[in-house]
Amino acid sequence: MALHHEAPIRVGLLGAGTVGSQTARLLVEQKDELSQRIGRDIELGGVACLDPDEVDFPWIDRSLLTSDTMAVATNADIVVELIGGLEPARTFVLAAIESGASVVTANKALLAKHGPEIYQAAADKGVDIYFEAAVGGAIPIVRPLRESLVGDKVTSMLGIVNGTTNYILDEMTTKGLDFDVALRDAQARGYAEADPTGDIEGHDAANKAAIMATLGFHTNVGIDDVTVEGITRITADDIAAAAAEHKVVKLLAVVENGEAGVSARVYPALIDENHPLASVHGSFNAVFVKAEAADDLMFYGRGAGGAPTASAVVGDVVTVARHIAQGCTGPVIPMYNDLPKAPIEASKAAFAVRFLIHDKPGVLAAIAAEFAKRGVSINGVNQDLKPTLHDPGYSGELQQLRIVTHLTDEATLRDTVKAVCELDFVTGEPSILRVLD
Amino acid sequence: MALHHEAPIRVGLLGAGTVGSQTARLLVEQKDELSQRIGRDIELGGVACLDPDEVDFPWIDRSLLTSDTMAVATNADIVVELIGGLEPARTFVLAAIESGASVVTANKALLAKHGPEIYQAAADKGVDIYFEAAVGGAIPIVRPLRESLVGDKVTSMLGIVNGTTNYILDEMTTKGLDFDVALRDAQARGYAEADPTGDIEGHDAANKAAIMATLGFHTNVGIDDVTVEGITRITADDIAAAAAEHKVVKLLAVVENGEAGVSARVYPALIDENHPLASVHGSFNAVFVKAEAADDLMFYGRGAGGAPTASAVVGDVVTVARHIAQGCTGPVIPMYNDLPKAPIEASKAAFAVRFLIHDKPGVLAAIAAEFAKRGVSINGVNQDLKPTLHDPGYSGELQQLRIVTHLTDEATLRDTVKAVCELDFVTGEPSILRVLD
Ligand SMILES: NC(=O)c1ccc[n+]([C@@H]2O[C@H](COP(=O)([O-])OP(=O)(O)OC[C@H]3O[C@@H](n4cnc5c(N)ncnc54)[C@H](OP(=O)(O)O)[C@@H]3O)[C@@H](O)[C@H]2O)c1
Ligand SMILES: NC(=O)c1ccc[n+]([C@@H]2O[C@H](COP(=O)([O-])OP(=O)(O)OC[C@H]3O[C@@H](n4cnc5c(N)ncnc54)[C@H](OP(=O)(O)O)[C@@H]3O)[C@@H](O)[C@H]2O)c1
Repeated sequence: MALHHEAPIRVGLLGAGTVGSQTARLLVEQKDELSQRIGRDIELGGVACLDPDEVDFPWIDRSLLTSDTMAVATNADIVVELIGGLEPARTFVLAAIESGASVVTANKALLAKHGPEIYQAAADKGVDIYFEAAVGGAIPIVRPLRESLVGDKVTSMLGIVNGTTNYILDEMTTKGLDFDVALRDAQARGYAEADPTGDIEGHDAANKAAIMATLGFHTNVGIDDVTVEGITRITADDIAAAAAEHKVVKLLAVVENGEAGVSARVYPALIDENHPLASVHGSFNAVFVKAEAADDLMFYGRGAGGAPTASAVVGDVVTVARHIAQGCTGPVIPMYNDLPKAPIEASKAAFAVRFLIHDKPGVLAAIAAEFAKRGVSINGVNQDLKPTLHDPGYSGELQQLRIVTHLTDEATLRDTVKAVCELDFVTGEPSILRVLD
Repeated sequence: MALHHEAPIRVGLLGAGTVGSQTARLLVEQKDELSQRIGRDIELGGVACLDPDEVDFPWIDRSLLTSDTMAVATNADIVVELIGGLEPARTFVLAAIESGASVVTANKALLAKHGPEIYQAAADKGVDIYFEAAVGGAIPIVRPLRESLVGDKVTSMLGIVNGTTNYILDEMTTKGLDFDVALRDAQARGYAEADPTGDIEGHDAANKAAIMATLGFHTNVGIDDVTVEGITRITADDIAAAAAEHKVVKLLAVVENGEAGVSARVYPALIDENHPLASVHGSFNAVFVKAEAADDLMFYGRGAGGAPTASAVVGDVVTVARHIAQGCTGPVIPMYNDLPKAPIEASKAAFAVRFLIHDKPGVLAAIAAEFAKRGVSINGVNQDLKPTLHDPGYSGELQQLRIVTHLTDEATLRDTVKAVCELDFVTGEPSILRVLD
């Protein structure tokens, strides 16, 4: 059905994998409805992938498939980049912009690393760069930050933005599994990749944290500005100790615009089991936003998966297509606030520290003295915990001692823990987790 | 600071009440930052209210105040309508559009009643009509429906969209208060208006349901298409009976696009205490959206209040101002799907029905026979509940009998309840509540 007399808007798709194939499906199956929304016909003009012979989806016309990615990237009105990774994705995206195309991407790694270069190239060329799917998959969070909250001041965001680690922590919590077992299980079920490093070490969440901070605070926050801690050192004991205090362990992306500057961090933390984020399970994601006027907002939904992510991608494609039909563009990514990065020492948190000790009289007093000496105030002590085989350095005679602090700065806490570990009755690796209040 | 050489974009504000005054504050206090986002200066050009002498906010320049509302409505680039109600708001909005201004409003009553007329007028004139604050206050829900989800098919939405009733039900639940007491309490604390009818009878939620259905299903759903039931008949006994089954009573807006057509309803319902909506307390709002590709999404935040609502209004103002600066407009409100309205008989739900009875042998069998006769299958029966003084028709000899059904259609359920009420040992008014699974 040709709705309009002008030439249709051509979409070039780079990548036909998990998200690319579903994006193609929505573009093809909803073509008429989308064209109606846009006010001009839209069509899928080409699909690039490494091995076109391997691609077999009934909705992708075989004649559209090619391995000449550059040709697709430079011969479309809208280029949708769903290859992933830094290169060659960056080269194709910049070439697309240079050719005058607007770009839609789900590539958080690319934006967290090369965002400013790409945003500037798009602004210079007067084209759009949209990336709703890069944070929180299907969840509309980029658009609200970019448009709905522009009259407000975002002060902080807190999110569960990686489904793989959330799934693993859930399995550890509900089944009492150790990390390695839960990871292998997640891999077997397809919830974790063969090389899970990017997820479990927190890098994927860190990419999203960088994008969230940039959008929320209007200042450039890149991947290298994010402090990252993954979940590989979380043990079944950490989770059991948390459960005993009605808390759960979640991997969080935390970005703040405080007095000391802007910070972006990813770390596993203990949160109360009544906290709304505690009930975000499996591959679901959720982001809390705090803004001066709007107060608390939360966004929740599927953080990954082909169809959910494609839903967000196609939403962007329609917006960009409308702009093309009307001869305008969406808001540029603003980075006019040149805010300082908060030094890590400025960060205050409560911590739960678990030591392995040879128990004997005076142990607690000696440890408490190290905390007191540095002004770290103790909120609670638990010596009932039994060490298990999950603990590195375990031997039958050892006991666990868990100390929860009041708010303290991270540098002092780490100094204190180091000093305690040098005491002769302390052994093994301590576990340090932040406690969210 | 004059950023740009063109004339500034003039905003005319109609109403300086709860939301209007806060909108003025954000526009004045954030002027420079907003101008930067827009790419052109923006300024508050006039503020209309009934009694300018009574308005006293340090951020509103007295010379801007006037009671000549029509003059403000027809002498601005963007008119922000925050008067509320149908008339004269409708007249001013249409006059603003006719004068070539784009309009931002938070007025759900106006849109649920006169939406099509206003959307058409804006489309004809080529101006924008934006209304993020009309549903869910500060929560970005209109924009995601209008833009993020356009590549997807929304199948249903379920929301707590009225803070006053949510607050009252919360108070009834946590303090065991009866409806009248909780209402007076809410009025005393400023959570309910002197005339609370619009909230407690469900009309406010119904306006939002109409807008949600229109945006989600791209078909016109007006206030007269919404079936409404408020919370005035909920008793402390209903809530106690629910609590005994680990459920809570919430007033829900439910819109669906099913096989029988589109439906939009507002009713109090029992939901499981583990359901995410069960933990939406006080004046907070939350909306669940189900879409084919995106799957489940949830949006949560402040549903009302001057500053939160103004945050959403100003977000719209900036979007509309950018369009003006660029010479384009946002997507029109699409109503190209001329979907049938689902007949009420087509609606299936589980129900909890509470009867007052004179207990004697054979009562349950007789009542169960009425259900069986009409094919309404019973999920559970509870005869332990003690009737209290809260019940209309109470007398010491009476007992309560509570029946929870499996899924059944509403018409049959109502027939059954009517037949049971005609049995000679049944007395008083039965209570009928839907049960969400
Ligand atoms: N998967 C999710 O749930 C999800 C969620 C949010 C965001 N994302 C992001 O979406 C992007 C795509 O993810 P995905 O899961 O769809 O990845 P994927 O399944 O691995 O698909 C990648 C696709 O890119 C193609 N490709 C690789 N190099 C190429 C090149 N040089 N030229 C053309 N095509 C090339 C591959 O071709 P072959 O098939 O021929 O190898 C494949 O079709 C990533 O940036 C990811 O971070 C994914
Ligand atoms: N309050 C909330 O939390 C909230 C949340 C979401 C949406 N909304 C919507 O926002 C709108 C405004 O609500 P509100 O709570 O701000 O109402 P409000 O406090 O009652 O304020 C209404 C304002 O309109 C003025 N007004 C009345 N008639 C007028 C006329 N003919 N010309 C010019 N001004 C006139 C009043 O002037 P005077 O002050 O001189 O009487 C007052 O300043 C309503 O549509 C409401 O549904 C409100």
